[in-house]
Order: sequence, then C-alpha cells, then structure tokens
Amino acid sequence: MNFYGNYITRLIEELASLPGIGGKSAQRLAFYIINMPQEKAEALSRAIIDAKSNIKYCSVCCNISDTDICPVCSNPKRDKSVIMVVEDPRDMAAYEKTKEFKGVYHVLHGAISPMSGIGPEDIKIKELLKRIHEGQIKEVIIATNPNVEGEATAMYLSRLIKPLGVKVSRIANGVPVGGDLEYVDEVTLSRALEGRREM
Amino acid sequence: MNFYGNYITRLIEELASLPGIGGKSAQRLAFYIINMPQEKAEALSRAIIDAKSNIKYCSVCCNISDTDICPVCSNPKRDKSVIMVVEDPRDMAAYEKTKEFKGVYHVLHGAISPMSGIGPEDIKIKELLKRIHEGQIKEVIIATNPNVEGEATAMYLSRLIKPLGVKVSRIANGVPVGGDLEYVDEVTLSRALEGRREM
Repeated sequence: MNFYGNYITRLIEELASLPGIGGKSAQRLAFYIINMPQEKAEALSRAIIDAKSNIKYCSVCCNISDTDICPVCSNPKRDKSVIMVVEDPRDMAAYEKTKEFKGVYHVLHGAISPMSGIGPEDIKIKELLKRIHEGQIKEVIIATNPNVEGEATAMYLSRLIKPLGVKVSRIANGVPVGGDLEYVDEVTLSRALEGRREM
Repeated sequence: MNFYGNYITRLIEELASLPGIGGKSAQRLAFYIINMPQEKAEALSRAIIDAKSNIKYCSVCCNISDTDICPVCSNPKRDKSVIMVVEDPRDMAAYEKTKEFKGVYHVLHGAISPMSGIGPEDIKIKELLKRIHEGQIKEVIIATNPNVEGEATAMYLSRLIKPLGVKVSRIANGVPVGGDLEYVDEVTLSRALEGRREM
C-alpha cells in the first residue's frame, strides 16, 4: 500500500517494525509526526541517534550510563558490600523507585536460557565474579525474574558464589501487595505459605 | 526518574510524547531502539526527518504526496468528474483499499468543529469549490466521518455545492457488514431501516 508517497510509507514501515506497534498505530504515529512542529520532529529523530550512539555501560555494574561509572556506583552513600543482581536496567530502575535498597547493583543483561541459546558466558556473570573476587562483598541478592530462566540463572549464580564464602539470597516469592488471592496462581500461593512470617 | 542517563531519558520522554504511547511503552521502545543495529536506528531517525521535511500536498486534491500531483489525480483512468470528499488522507487510503471507487478525491484535512474552533476557512473547502467551478464535475460524494463534525461538514458542503448544479451525495449509514445487530446502536439501526433497499 503506497497511498501516501514513499517518505510516509517508509516512516510507517519503520515505526511498524518496533515492538507493540502494529500497522494502524504506525500509520497514526506517522501522521502525528508529520503534523508535529519541525523542531519537535527533529528532537525525536536526534534523540534516537543520540541514545543509540552514546550508549555506554558502567564499568563496575554494567548498567547503562552516560558516564564511565554510573551514578549509583559512584555514590559514596551506597553500601558497596551488598550487590543486587538484576537481569535488565529496567529491573534496576524498578528497585530504585522503591528507594528501599541502599546497596549497589549488577546488571546481567539477560538470563541463562538454553532454549534461546543464551549460556552463562553470554551474560555479565564473569564481571560479577570479578567484582566478588576483588571487593569486600558481604551479600549478593539475586533479583532475576521469577520465571524459568530467572530461576535457572539464580540457581547457577548461587552455586558459583556460595563457595566463595559470600552470603547469597533470593528476593521473596509471595502474593503481590494489593492483589486478590482468588486470582493468584497455585505455585505463588504455596511459595507465600512456605515463606510465611510470624506476626 | 533518571536511572538511565540523559540520552536514554530524553529518548523515553520524546517517545512518551507520541499519542498512544505511555511511560512503560516508551521505556520498552527506547530499550528496543538502543539494542537495534546502528543502521536500523539511523533508518528510523532519518525516516522521521525525511517524512517531516518532504511532505507535500497534491495541488489538485490536497492529498499527501511526494509529487506535485498525486498518483490518483494524475492517473488517466480515473474519472475526474466524480469527487469523493474525505476528511483525512487515511480515509482516502481506506477507500482506495476497497478498489471500488474509480473517481478522484478531495482531502479536507479536518472537519468543521465549532467546539475546537475549526471553521470552514480552516479546512480545504475553498480548494474544493475552485475545482468545482473550474472542472466538469458531475457528482460530489461526501464521505466525511459519520459523527457530529463530519455530518455538520457534509451539510455545510451540500448547501454550498447544490446551488452550483452539481449532484451531491452522502455515503450510506447502516449496519456494518459482519456486524451483529444486537450490538449496533439505535441511531444506526433506524438509519439502516430508512435506507433499506428492495431485494
């Protein structure tokens, strides 16, 4: 379908290749973009290239960062002896929003998944072990996702790290706050029972 | 929230300003973009600027076009004596997909809407009247949207064009094909009854 000429058709195709954006949404976005003020469209275009070209990883925790060492790792108030291991920078951001965690992070950029051909050497496990060997690490909290890949990664890491004399913990499974017991799956319910705390 | 550094935060903000893209989707898209191959990201960025900078309107029908006269208006097989009036280039594309209409179009780029301060002079009515005055137009089919603004625009146009001795018609209201009568609103049902055809 080329009812709009080549430039708009190309823009629609580029937008439709993004995840979660179908043909109709892409068309709607493309028309929104061509009706934007010129400087807004330029800002969007530039933001894409800038983000793509200037992407760096923190040399300590492998988080995405503008600087060589990310703001969390360079913050003197953070407790460098506790490392929370997450799969993705977004998971780190999710925990940062809670403002509860005072330690530092390690971003794996994935999880072990033999089904997708992702092995331990494809994610940032080597970097994590190097940090543990070098620093005074007291505890490693594994906060990978509570799915098959995340659990496998957690298990793998715990077997590697425990022998080094470092405490390894895993974030709790249980019923989500604000949730409705009726709609919680059986596995979560039994994990919540197992992990019950005295009141 | 600036957990990812300035470049990514700016990209997330730019994406979140697009219609139908919320904070979480913008974040997901931004991470998808930074993990794209460099040339894909550049293609997306360039497509935005190209579409925005090279946008032209057909000097006949006001449709969006790469060329001075759009492919429909320059096609010698199209019947130039029948003009279908639509609000938006997307409406034209929707009718082109049916492959049923052999005439040409006129794109108003909006509809009369006193509530949003859009009057007859803000949409391409002047250009339509000029075409009618100049050419050998037999019929004007009004295919504005079947909502308040579209109906008001249709009424306004018909009062302007009828006195010029040109046949004016409006696309039919009725039950959509494949629809379920049960879920069709009362107004549509009574319009469908009014417009019934002998079998």
